[in-house]
Amino acid sequence: MKAFVTGAAGFVGSTLVDRLLAAGHTVVGYDNLSTGRRAFLAEAISSERFSLVVGDISSQEQLAQSMLGCDFVFHLAANADVRFGLQHPKRDLETNTIGTFNVLEAMRTCNIRKIVFSSTGSVYGETAVVPTPEDAPFPVQTSLYGASKVAGESLIQAYAAGFDFQSWIFRFVGVLGERYTHGHVVDFCRQLFIDSNNLNVLGNGHQQKSYIYVQDCIDAIFCAIDSAAAKVNIFNLGIDNFCTVRDCVGWITEELALNPTIKFGTEDRGWIGDNPVIFLDTAKIRALGWSSTVSIEDAIKLTVRYVNNNREVALGSSENKPAVSEQKA
Amino acid sequence: MKAFVTGAAGFVGSTLVDRLLAAGHTVVGYDNLSTGRRAFLAEAISSERFSLVVGDISSQEQLAQSMLGCDFVFHLAANADVRFGLQHPKRDLETNTIGTFNVLEAMRTCNIRKIVFSSTGSVYGETAVVPTPEDAPFPVQTSLYGASKVAGESLIQAYAAGFDFQSWIFRFVGVLGERYTHGHVVDFCRQLFIDSNNLNVLGNGHQQKSYIYVQDCIDAIFCAIDSAAAKVNIFNLGIDNFCTVRDCVGWITEELALNPTIKFGTEDRGWIGDNPVIFLDTAKIRALGWSSTVSIEDAIKLTVRYVNNNREVALGSSENKPAVSEQKA
Repeated sequence: MKAFVTGAAGFVGSTLVDRLLAAGHTVVGYDNLSTGRRAFLAEAISSERFSLVVGDISSQEQLAQSMLGCDFVFHLAANADVRFGLQHPKRDLETNTIGTFNVLEAMRTCNIRKIVFSSTGSVYGETAVVPTPEDAPFPVQTSLYGASKVAGESLIQAYAAGFDFQSWIFRFVGVLGERYTHGHVVDFCRQLFIDSNNLNVLGNGHQQKSYIYVQDCIDAIFCAIDSAAAKVNIFNLGIDNFCTVRDCVGWITEELALNPTIKFGTEDRGWIGDNPVIFLDTAKIRALGWSSTVSIEDAIKLTVRYVNNNREVALGSSENKPAVSEQKA
Repeated sequence: MKAFVTGAAGFVGSTLVDRLLAAGHTVVGYDNLSTGRRAFLAEAISSERFSLVVGDISSQEQLAQSMLGCDFVFHLAANADVRFGLQHPKRDLETNTIGTFNVLEAMRTCNIRKIVFSSTGSVYGETAVVPTPEDAPFPVQTSLYGASKVAGESLIQAYAAGFDFQSWIFRFVGVLGERYTHGHVVDFCRQLFIDSNNLNVLGNGHQQKSYIYVQDCIDAIFCAIDSAAAKVNIFNLGIDNFCTVRDCVGWITEELALNPTIKFGTEDRGWIGDNPVIFLDTAKIRALGWSSTVSIEDAIKLTVRYVNNNREVALGSSENKPAVSEQKA
């Protein structure tokens, strides 16, 4: 295929690009490099089958110019600053909802009708059904991030009905692994690199979270594209297990061989809109033959090792703006 | 209360304005008069407790200036051209999603935290659960209209979680009654006024639809505001019954005392994105003590009588643009 990947310089995006190239596909990457890192595409750029367009998904025109001739869109570009949605209420709407609309319209212009979309387990809000299946009760949103992703999913579904698009929508739990630059593991590492004796954790640490290793995540996407042929294919992507934030802190400090004083918060969640429990039912994707190969503990330790060995990349600035310090889980 | 009503010159909006004034409230109406009719506010305008602002929900600034001092927002302004979404894909997004965001941001500016939102049964897509309860399985959208309303609902829910808003979200079936200017009953009447011997119906006529009489609808909204005190209150609004499009055609021709040749389509739906079945479970709102008082048959006949006796208003142009000819059910 000739694939168009938005968010191509991001953590998951660049890993997807490498995997697509390794599988023999041609790839056009599209990224505004606001949080993506050109360094993640170092290997890809050496391939004749890869090209990078530095562009923003706010420009329908540039999107359409760039994706002309492609036959498959992987739309991963997004504002993933879940925790800071309330400080910039328009950001999620603009990037995740209107941005997705722009991608869809550009696809229509270019007569491309296949799209993969990275959604999130956050769309289930604070569901009462755990582990949460894809057809859980109609959720109530608790974050602007979740709201913007539900809106993106819904637009894609309407384009499938109205314009004969075919779509694969993935609701991720947290993704971990090499090139992870953004979220609670990085935030904890950053704190410990500055002061190895103290660690502050948002929330009481009993939040239950699930994580998937990035290569397992890409395997699942490829599996679904190959095997699921409905117009709208929705899959939870996660692992058949969860951990608490306290487990996670233990594995991080163990991997770094540190023994800091840990100060937990008192709330049952890290911030407004944080889900105290994210644990998805992944029976649907597993029924296609996929299964995860890396445990949560190993995914966290691999991530810590990567961050520790690549401090400049993992903690450093992206090309255009400083990395946002945050603790996302 | 001092209420701010968007879409105040519309069918449901103007009826709500009259009812709010009759209940002793003060009302600021906001409407761009693109599909609303100034004539519907003739009585309201004679009240000292009413003022009308001609403005668009695309302007966050004008919204904020206009709603200052109000304590309750009824957000009814919307693009309701369900059927023509595919011809203008951006319209639903701009009016229904971004417009709702603008209303929410204006409310934040003005420190107003209570909002009623008119959503739609279309958000359930082609659900397998009929009659459909509020907590039906997470739906897949089939129209840009439904997608835009899900997005609006989701934004409101996120504002409830993040900014302590309180919201009442109503998922309407079709609303009928006096001042109805838009949808399949008007479309059928328009055809019959031009040629009383022939009527063309989109779809095979077996689509199952449910309708609610506009005054019953306002009663339900008032009942919910008075009785439901959660942060996010979601209610289906409809009648405990449904009809087919064929029933509907029969009642219309009976009321007009005509006997046209009726030509049905062959499809099980009127257009792409039309729901072949809309029938909502209304147990939740009925549990608050509300019940409908007008049957579907009577609601349709009252509507036909109104349209027939007010041809200029019901079929004529709005102030700024010609009425769109459509058959919405």
